[in-house]
Amino acid sequence: MAVAVDVAELVERARGGQQRAVARLISLVEDAHPQLREVAAALTPHTGNATVVGLTGPPGVGKSTSTSMLISALRAEGKRVGVLAIDPSSPFSGGALLGDRIRMTEHAVDPGVFIRSMATRGHLGGLAWATPQALRVLDAAGFDVVLVETVGVGQSEVDVVRLADTTVVLLAPGMGDGIQAAKAGVLEIADVFVVNKADRDGADTTVRELKQMISLARREVRGHSWRQPIVRTVAVKGEGAAQVVEALTEHHTWLEANDELRRRRAGRAAGEVEAIALQSLHAELVDLRGGRRLAELAEGVVDRVVDPFSAADQLIEGLRS
Amino acid sequence: MAVAVDVAELVERARGGQQRAVARLISLVEDAHPQLREVAAALTPHTGNATVVGLTGPPGVGKSTSTSMLISALRAEGKRVGVLAIDPSSPFSGGALLGDRIRMTEHAVDPGVFIRSMATRGHLGGLAWATPQALRVLDAAGFDVVLVETVGVGQSEVDVVRLADTTVVLLAPGMGDGIQAAKAGVLEIADVFVVNKADRDGADTTVRELKQMISLARREVRGHSWRQPIVRTVAVKGEGAAQVVEALTEHHTWLEANDELRRRRAGRAAGEVEAIALQSLHAELVDLRGGRRLAELAEGVVDRVVDPFSAADQLIEGLRS
Repeated sequence: MAVAVDVAELVERARGGQQRAVARLISLVEDAHPQLREVAAALTPHTGNATVVGLTGPPGVGKSTSTSMLISALRAEGKRVGVLAIDPSSPFSGGALLGDRIRMTEHAVDPGVFIRSMATRGHLGGLAWATPQALRVLDAAGFDVVLVETVGVGQSEVDVVRLADTTVVLLAPGMGDGIQAAKAGVLEIADVFVVNKADRDGADTTVRELKQMISLARREVRGHSWRQPIVRTVAVKGEGAAQVVEALTEHHTWLEANDELRRRRAGRAAGEVEAIALQSLHAELVDLRGGRRLAELAEGVVDRVVDPFSAADQLIEGLRS
Repeated sequence: MAVAVDVAELVERARGGQQRAVARLISLVEDAHPQLREVAAALTPHTGNATVVGLTGPPGVGKSTSTSMLISALRAEGKRVGVLAIDPSSPFSGGALLGDRIRMTEHAVDPGVFIRSMATRGHLGGLAWATPQALRVLDAAGFDVVLVETVGVGQSEVDVVRLADTTVVLLAPGMGDGIQAAKAGVLEIADVFVVNKADRDGADTTVRELKQMISLARREVRGHSWRQPIVRTVAVKGEGAAQVVEALTEHHTWLEANDELRRRRAGRAAGEVEAIALQSLHAELVDLRGGRRLAELAEGVVDRVVDPFSAADQLIEGLRS
C-alpha cells in the first residue's frame, strides 16, 4: 500500500525550492501514485511559466555536453533550470548513457538546477504519458527553463521532443550523409540548429549543407516566417553558449508574437489529455471480466475462429455495456 | 479514394507465391486501406504456420549481415523466408539504414525470400499496430519462417521483438561494459545469444561474461527450464550459421513441448487486439464533436481551468454518451 502524502505541503515545499520535494513529486507521478490526480490538480494553478526547450540529435553528437553547457549559460543569467533526460529504454543502452549522465554532475550541487533521468521502460503509457507529468512538476516548482533532452533514436524518444516550445537539433561535422538522407524529418522538428564540434574538419560543409536544406525547404513552406538559425558550438570548451541562448530567446519572442506559443502548448496539452484518456481506456480494456476478456479473445485469434479486428470490436463492446 | 481490391484473388495469388501480391497486401494493411478488415478476415484462416524469429542487438553488431546469413542457411533447408526489417523511425537514421539494407540484396532475386522494410513513422498506432498485420500477411502467404529484425534502440523497436516465438540477441566482442550494465533487459528478451565477429579479440571474454550472467540469472528464475545457448558466428564469412539454425530448432521444440509456443502466440494476439482496439478508441476520441472536443479541453488545460486528468475524464465521457 502506498503511504498517504500531504500533497499541498509537498507542492509548497517544491515551490519553495526544496529539491527533495521536487524529486518526490516526480516519483509520485511516474509511479502513478493513488494520489496522482490530487497532485495534478494541486500543480495545475502554478503552471504555464516555464519555457520548455527540447534537445535532440544523433548519437555521438555531444548532446549531454551541450546540455551541460546550456545549463551553465542559463544559470549565468540567473535562470532556474530543470532537466528531463530521456533515456532510450533499450536493454542495450545502459552503459553508454550512464557515462553520459556523469558529465552533468558538475551541476548536481547547484540548488538552481534539477536533473532527472526518466527511466521509462515499463511505465504505464510510456513516455507520452510520463514526460508531460514530470514537466508539470518542474513548471509548477518554478523552474524558468525546462530542458527535455533525448537522443534522436526511436519513435517514442523523438516524439517527446514535440512537447517543447523550442526544439534544438544538434548536429556535428562528418554526419553529412545522414543529414541529406533524413532532411525532411530534421527540418520538421528543428527550431534552432546547433552544429557542435565546430572546431573539427567539415564544420563548414555541415553548416553549408544545412543552409541549403533550410533555404530549399523555405520555398515549400508558405507562411512560415521563422528562419531556423544555425549556431556553431564547441560544447566541451563552452564556446557558442551565449549564441545558443540568444537563438532560444529570439525564437521565444517569435513564438509569442505569432501566437505560436499558445498553439504549441495547446498541442502539448491535447497530446497529454489524449495519452491519459488512452491509458485509462487501456486499463479498462485489460480489466474486463476480471482480466479474462482480452485473453479469451486472444485465444480465439490463435485458434483462427476470429480475426483480430473483430476481436477488437468485441473488446470495445465490453467498455460500453 | 482508394481503389476497390479483389481481396480473395490477392490472397490466393500471395499464397501461390507471387511476391507482388504479398507486397500489395502488406501495403494495404500498412496504409489502413478501407478493405483492411476484409483483408484480415481473409488471411486469418491461413495463419499460424510460420515460425516467427526476432533478431535484435546494439548498433554495429552486424545485424543485417547476420540476418542475411540466416536467410541463406534457412533457404538451404528449403524453407521459405520472410523478413520484416524494422527501422527505428528517427529523422536522423535514414543514411545508415539504407546502407544496411543493401547488404541483403543478394536475396532480392530469390522467389523464396521476401524482404520488407517497415517505414513506421506516422503510422496510425505505430509499430505495435502495423507489425503484427504485416506478419499475418507473410504467415498466410506460406512463409515457413518470418524474421523480424530491429536494432535494439528505442522502446517501440525493442517491443516489436516481443512478437517473436524465438528472440535472438546479437552481441559482439568489445561490448562487455554494455552487457554488464544492461544484463537484466538483455536476459529477459533473449532465447538465443549469438556472439558475432567471434574471430575478433575479446570474443572469449564476451562469451564468458554471458555464461556468467546466464548462470546467475538461472538461480533467480524458478521453473525456467530453457537454458539460453550462446552461438559464435562470423556472419560476413557465413561461419556459425548451421549452429544458429540448430539453436532455433531446439528452442522451437522446447516451446512446443512446454506449451510455451501457444502461450507466446496468445500474448502476441492479445497485444495485437489491444493495439487495434486502442487505435479505434483513439480515432473516436480525436473525432468527438467534429474534432473540436479534444482541442477545447486542451485550451482549458493551457488556461489552467482544468487539470489534464479531469480533462481526460471529460473526453472519455464523450465516448459513452
